[in-house]
Amino acid sequence: MFKKQMVLDDVILFRTGKPFNTTAVIKEITDDFDNSEDFPYFEVKEYENYYEFVYEMDKDDYVYGLGEQLGALNKRGKEYKLYSTDDPIHTPEKGSLYGSHPFAFIDGSKKFAFMIDFPGEIVFDIGYTHKDLMTVKVPSKDFDFYLFDIEDKYEVIKKYLELTGSPFVPPKWSWGFQQCRWSYPDADTINNIAESFRKDGIPCDAIYMDIDYMKDYKVFTVDEEKFPNFEDFAKNLKKDGFKLVPIIDPGVKIEDNYSVYEEGKENNYFCKDKDGEDFVAAVWPGLTHFPDFLNKEARKWWGEKYKFFTDKGIYSFWNDMNEPSIFYSLKGFNKLVEIGENLRGNEDMGIKSFLAKEQMFDMANNREDYKSFYHRADDGSTVNHDLVHNLYGYFMAKATVEEGFDNIIPNQRYLLLSRSSYLGHHRIATIWMGDNMSWWDHMLVQMRMLQSLNMAGFFYTGADVGGFGSNASPELVIRWMQLGAFTPLYRNHSALGTREQEPFAFDEETKDIMRDIIRLRYSLIPYSYSEYMKSVSELRPFIKPLHMDYEGKRVKEIEDQYMYGDSIMVAPVHTQNAKGRFVHLPGDDKWLCWVASKYDERKMSIYFPGDFYVDADLNEIPLFIKENKLITISEPMNYVGEKEIEEITVIGLVTDKAEFTYYEDDGETKDYQKGKFAEALITVEKEGNEYKFSVEKDEHENPETGETYELAIKRIKFEIYDEHGNIIENTIEI
Amino acid sequence: MFKKQMVLDDVILFRTGKPFNTTAVIKEITDDFDNSEDFPYFEVKEYENYYEFVYEMDKDDYVYGLGEQLGALNKRGKEYKLYSTDDPIHTPEKGSLYGSHPFAFIDGSKKFAFMIDFPGEIVFDIGYTHKDLMTVKVPSKDFDFYLFDIEDKYEVIKKYLELTGSPFVPPKWSWGFQQCRWSYPDADTINNIAESFRKDGIPCDAIYMDIDYMKDYKVFTVDEEKFPNFEDFAKNLKKDGFKLVPIIDPGVKIEDNYSVYEEGKENNYFCKDKDGEDFVAAVWPGLTHFPDFLNKEARKWWGEKYKFFTDKGIYSFWNDMNEPSIFYSLKGFNKLVEIGENLRGNEDMGIKSFLAKEQMFDMANNREDYKSFYHRADDGSTVNHDLVHNLYGYFMAKATVEEGFDNIIPNQRYLLLSRSSYLGHHRIATIWMGDNMSWWDHMLVQMRMLQSLNMAGFFYTGADVGGFGSNASPELVIRWMQLGAFTPLYRNHSALGTREQEPFAFDEETKDIMRDIIRLRYSLIPYSYSEYMKSVSELRPFIKPLHMDYEGKRVKEIEDQYMYGDSIMVAPVHTQNAKGRFVHLPGDDKWLCWVASKYDERKMSIYFPGDFYVDADLNEIPLFIKENKLITISEPMNYVGEKEIEEITVIGLVTDKAEFTYYEDDGETKDYQKGKFAEALITVEKEGNEYKFSVEKDEHENPETGETYELAIKRIKFEIYDEHGNIIENTIEI
Repeated sequence: MFKKQMVLDDVILFRTGKPFNTTAVIKEITDDFDNSEDFPYFEVKEYENYYEFVYEMDKDDYVYGLGEQLGALNKRGKEYKLYSTDDPIHTPEKGSLYGSHPFAFIDGSKKFAFMIDFPGEIVFDIGYTHKDLMTVKVPSKDFDFYLFDIEDKYEVIKKYLELTGSPFVPPKWSWGFQQCRWSYPDADTINNIAESFRKDGIPCDAIYMDIDYMKDYKVFTVDEEKFPNFEDFAKNLKKDGFKLVPIIDPGVKIEDNYSVYEEGKENNYFCKDKDGEDFVAAVWPGLTHFPDFLNKEARKWWGEKYKFFTDKGIYSFWNDMNEPSIFYSLKGFNKLVEIGENLRGNEDMGIKSFLAKEQMFDMANNREDYKSFYHRADDGSTVNHDLVHNLYGYFMAKATVEEGFDNIIPNQRYLLLSRSSYLGHHRIATIWMGDNMSWWDHMLVQMRMLQSLNMAGFFYTGADVGGFGSNASPELVIRWMQLGAFTPLYRNHSALGTREQEPFAFDEETKDIMRDIIRLRYSLIPYSYSEYMKSVSELRPFIKPLHMDYEGKRVKEIEDQYMYGDSIMVAPVHTQNAKGRFVHLPGDDKWLCWVASKYDERKMSIYFPGDFYVDADLNEIPLFIKENKLITISEPMNYVGEKEIEEITVIGLVTDKAEFTYYEDDGETKDYQKGKFAEALITVEKEGNEYKFSVEKDEHENPETGETYELAIKRIKFEIYDEHGNIIENTIEI
Repeated sequence: MFKKQMVLDDVILFRTGKPFNTTAVIKEITDDFDNSEDFPYFEVKEYENYYEFVYEMDKDDYVYGLGEQLGALNKRGKEYKLYSTDDPIHTPEKGSLYGSHPFAFIDGSKKFAFMIDFPGEIVFDIGYTHKDLMTVKVPSKDFDFYLFDIEDKYEVIKKYLELTGSPFVPPKWSWGFQQCRWSYPDADTINNIAESFRKDGIPCDAIYMDIDYMKDYKVFTVDEEKFPNFEDFAKNLKKDGFKLVPIIDPGVKIEDNYSVYEEGKENNYFCKDKDGEDFVAAVWPGLTHFPDFLNKEARKWWGEKYKFFTDKGIYSFWNDMNEPSIFYSLKGFNKLVEIGENLRGNEDMGIKSFLAKEQMFDMANNREDYKSFYHRADDGSTVNHDLVHNLYGYFMAKATVEEGFDNIIPNQRYLLLSRSSYLGHHRIATIWMGDNMSWWDHMLVQMRMLQSLNMAGFFYTGADVGGFGSNASPELVIRWMQLGAFTPLYRNHSALGTREQEPFAFDEETKDIMRDIIRLRYSLIPYSYSEYMKSVSELRPFIKPLHMDYEGKRVKEIEDQYMYGDSIMVAPVHTQNAKGRFVHLPGDDKWLCWVASKYDERKMSIYFPGDFYVDADLNEIPLFIKENKLITISEPMNYVGEKEIEEITVIGLVTDKAEFTYYEDDGETKDYQKGKFAEALITVEKEGNEYKFSVEKDEHENPETGETYELAIKRIKFEIYDEHGNIIENTIEI
C-alpha cells in the first residue's frame, strides 16, 4: 500500500510504511499524503516481504541511470544488484560496485524517471531475464519511491537535485593533475615525486597518501619514523603548490591506549553485534571496530578527528574502505579455520575442492557478516546493518563534512573523495570510481560511468587514470592520460606490486607526450572551471551523454564520446595500437575539430555532421568544439594559482553568434556563495562577413563586506574560425 | 651459439644445443648445418641459462601471431608468457592461455616471421616494457629458431604449414551447429534437447557430453545408471542426425580395480615424481595419475582406449584438462592444510590475510607442481615436465589420433577438439578457445583469436558461443550466435550454474531469431565447405584478417571484421544495445552488402570502399561480398547430409568476371585424399552489358577404384547484382 504526495511539480513521492530517514532528500516532506490507488507506468506486485515493480519496455526504449555501475551506458540487458561492495575485479558481469544510486531514466515511447530511496539491496533486472521487461525488486515494505513524470532529462536531473541538493564544489586546484600510488612509503619518496614533477616541468597539484603513511594502519595517525616533522613536510609541499591528500579508513584498530579506539569504545561509538558487543571485523590494521556513522554522536566525534590534519593545512581527503569493506569477521575466520582443520586426510576431494575454495573466498564482504551488526540511529532506534548497508560511506562523508569541516574549516573548500556513496552524497563530497584495472576496456568503463554518475549528480568525478590494478603499457597510460584530461577528477593511481605509472616512469617520448597532455589540461582550466561553476548553479550535468542533447537512436548508441561542458565533445582513442577512431558528429551543427596534442599547437579542421574515421596519433586526442560555442584557454602553470591568469584565448567556430561566460573566484573558500566572484560575458557575433567581438564584465559585490570581486584577466585574445576554416583574430584589453 | 640450415627457401633454422624432438616440424631436418656467425634482424643476447632476442621496432611496425592469446590482434603493447595454463578468467592482462604457439610476424618497415620450437615457457615482451622494443626470452640452450625471411604473410604461412603439416579436415557435419552444456546429466536430458531441436525446426548436428556422463569422472567409462543402453542411445541419436561428442580427460582416477588405472600403473604409463612414484594430482575425479603422453607406449595404450567409443559409432571427442590442469597436488594440499591449521589463534592478520589467500589459490596449476614430475620420452630419456610443459595437450592428441584413430578408424574423418595445443597440433586436431565468459568483450576476443589462430594453422576453430562462464542476456546470445555462424566451429556452450543458452531457453522471439541465423549458417555450407577445402589444399587461412589482403595502417587497425573464405567479409555487431556498427570497407573494390537475418531474405545494397555506419537490427548481421567474388547457398536442412543438395544459388556483385569452385565429397571419409571428390567451376562474366554464366564440372576419378565421384547438384541458380544493384537471374541445369 502506497500513499502519495506531489513533492515538486510532476515529482510524486509514493511512500510505503515508515522509511528509514536516509537524508538523501533534503527537501522537506510534509505529512500531507493522499492515498494512492494507482501507480503510473509500473505494474506493482506486492509480496509478503517485498515489492516488485514491473515495466514493459518497447523495443526501442533506452534505460539510463544507476550511477556507479559497470557495463553499458544504456542499462538495458543486465541485472544490477544495488548493494555496495568492495569488489576489486571489475569484470562486466558484476552488478554491484562501491556505491548505490537507485535512480533511473526511461527514454523511449514513454519518458520518465524514478528514484527509490531505500538503503538496502535493490535488484534491477533490466531486460536481462526477458529482454523487454524491467523488474525492480525492493525487499522491504518501508521505502520511498519518487516518480519523475517528466520527459526532459535535464528537467528530471534539475528536480532530482532540488530534492537531493546541488553538487558540491571542490577547490579550483582540484582541476589540476593529481598523482597517487599505493603507496609512497615515506616523506622522502613523496618529496622526490614532487621534485620530479617540477624538474620535468610537468604540472601537478596534489599527491595522495595511501594507507602506508599511518602507524600500523591506525586511522588519524602518521608514522613518525617515515614522516618526521609531518607538519613542516606538508607546509613545504604546499609552498611548492602540492596539496597532500591522506586516505582515511573507517576501521579503528583494536589496540589498548590508541586514543581513537579508547574513545570509541568508551562512548559506544562503534557498531554492535547482536549481543551488544562492539562488532569485530578485520581490515588493513587487523582486527578493528567500525564507527557507527548512522549515529550523530559518533559522527560528531569522528568529524572532529579530521582536525588532526586540517590544523596542518590539509583540507582534502579520500575516505576509503567504507562499504564497509570486511576482509573477514571473526565468525568467517573461525569457519575458515574449521575448513582448514578438516582438510587433513581429505585430499581426495576432486570437484569438492571448488566448494572449499569458494567458502574460503566468501570470507570477505560476506552478506552474513553485514547482517550480524547493528547501528543506533539518530532517533535512538537500533537498525540492522543489512537494511541500511548502502548508507555507510555516505554517512561517513556526513561525519567528515557536516560534523567535521562545517565546524572546523567552515569556509574552506575541500576535495573529499569517498569510495562508497548513496543518493545525496554528491551534495557534500564525491567519489572516484574505485579499483579499476590497467585494461583498455576500462577506459570505456570510465567514460560510461562518468556520464552515468553525472546524471546522478556526481558532476566532479573520475577514475584512476592508467588503471589501478594490473600493469600498464606506456601506450595505455598515454591514451588514458588523454581521456583523463577530460574528466573532472584527473588522478593517476596504481596499486602495490604493479608497474609505476607516474609520467617519469616511462621512456622520454612517453614522458614528453604526458607533459603535453597535462599542460593542455591546465590550459583549459579557464574553460573547465567556468563551465563547472555554471553547471552547478544551473543544476545541469557538467559531463553530458550525447543523448542528453540530441535525439534519435543513432545518438543513443554513442557511449564513448561525451560533452565536456557545453562546448567540447571529447572522442578519446581507447583502443590498443589505434591511430584514430570512428566518431559520430550528431545534430545539424558543424564542429571545429581540434586533434590536440599541445595546447599551443592547434591542428584544426571543420566537420559537418555524420560518421567519420578521425586520425589521432599516439600523442593526439580528437576534440570537437560545437559550432557557435566557445572555449577559453590560458598558458599552463606548474599548479593551479601559481600565477594570476591575465590573458585568455577564446577559440571557436562562429557562423552566427557565440557566447561564453568566463568565471573567476578565489578558488579556495566558499565566499563565492556570498557573491565574491566575477564573470566576463564574451560574445562573438558574425554579421554578414564581419565579426564583432565584445566582453562584458560582471564583477559581483559581496553583500556582507561590500567589496567588489575584480576580474584578474586583463586581455582576451580571439582565435575564431569561419566555416571555411579561415582564422579571424582579435584582442580586447579589459 | 647457433648453427644454421636453410630448411625451405628463405626459411632458415637456427639451432642451439640438442633440442627436444617436439614433432611440431614434420619436414625432415638433416644434419647438414653451417655455423652461424650472425643472426638476422635480432640482437641475440646469450646469458648463462637463457637467450634473449631483441628486435627494435619502428613506430609503425605491427606484430601478429602467437595463436591463442588474449588481447589485440596486433600483439604490440603487451607481455605474453607462453606456458599453457587452464585459466578460467580471461581478463585482458593474462599472457598465457591453454595453448602455446611461438610463431610471430613482423609487418612494418621490415617484414619477416619467426617460430621458436621450444616447449617450455617463452616470454614475448612486445612493446610492453619499452614501447619500441620486442624482447623474446627463451630459458634454454637447446631449441630451434626458424626465421622466415619472407615478406608476404601468405607465403610465410604456406612455408610454416609445409614445415608443420597441413591443417586437418573434420567431417562435413562439423560445419553444422553444435550444442553443449556442462552438463546434460543423463540420456533423457540429451534426448529431450535433441527432440527440442527437431520439434522447433532448429538445425543441429552434434550434442556434447561434458564430464558428468562418466562414472565418478573416470575416463573411458559411462555412468550406466544415467546412460542405460548407451550404444542404442548413441545410435538412435545418430539416426536423427545428432553426433555425440564425449569429453575425455587425461587424469586417471586412482581406484583399485578400475582397469584404466590398473593398466596404467602396471605398465608404468603414468608420469613419475622425483622418487619414481606415479605423480599424484587432483582433478575432477579426485586424486589421479597423468598418462605420460610423451612416451610412445603410453600413447599407444591410450589411443586404443577410444575404441570404447568408436565401436559405438562415436568418432568425435574433446580432449579437455590437458595443460594438464591440476586442482592441487598432494604437496600443495599439505601446504594448504598447514596454513589452515596455523590459522587458529591468528585472527588478527589484517593485510597478511591476503598472503594466506594467495597461497591457497596458488594451489591450482602451480608451477612448482609442474616442475615436480617427469616424462619418459620416446628416446628413453627422462625429462622434467616443466621443460616440455607446452606439449602435453598436443601429445594427448597424438595419442588419440596417431596411435588411436589411425589404427582403429583409419579412413574415418573425426572432429577432435583439444583445449591445450602446441605448434603442429593443427595437423591432427584442433582446439576450441577454452572457458570464455558471457561478456560482450569476449566476442571481440573471439574474433581476434580466430584470426590469430588461422595464422597459426588452426583453420577450423571457434569459441563457446554465448560465453561459457557467467550469465548471458538474450541479446548477447543472439549477437554471438550471429558471429558464431561465421566461425568454422559453431558450438553454443555454457557452464554449470549459469543461465541455459540453448535456442529454446529464451523467449519465442529470441528463439525465432536464433533459428533463422542457424538456418542461414546451414544454407551457407556449400560455400563454407568449398572454401575450407580450398584453403587446406592451398595452405591459405580460411579466416583472414584484413591486413592479409590489404595494405596500409588504416586496415591494420581493423580487428573486428574478417574474411570468411575469400568472398565474404563479416562485420558482426558485438556491442550491447547497438542497432548497427561502424565498418571499414578496404581496397578499391565495391562490396555487395547483405544485412542478413534469414537465408532467403536478401536485403542487399552496394557499397563503395570507405568508412560507414551500417544499420543492423537485433536479428541482422552485416555481411559484405567482395566485388567479382561469389558465394553459394542452398536450402537449409535439419542436419548436414539429411538430404542431398541438388540445387545451389550463386550470389555476387559482378562487374567483370567472377569464379567460384564448388566442392563436394562424401564428407565422412578420407577418400577425398585419393581423388573421391568433385568440383564445379562456376563462372559469371560481364561483357558489355551482357552477363555470361557457365559451369564446368570436374568429377574426379578415384585412382584406386577407378570410380568417378559424381556431383550431386543438378541445378545452379544465379542471383547476380550489377553495380547499380540490379539483379540478373539465370538457372543452369547440369
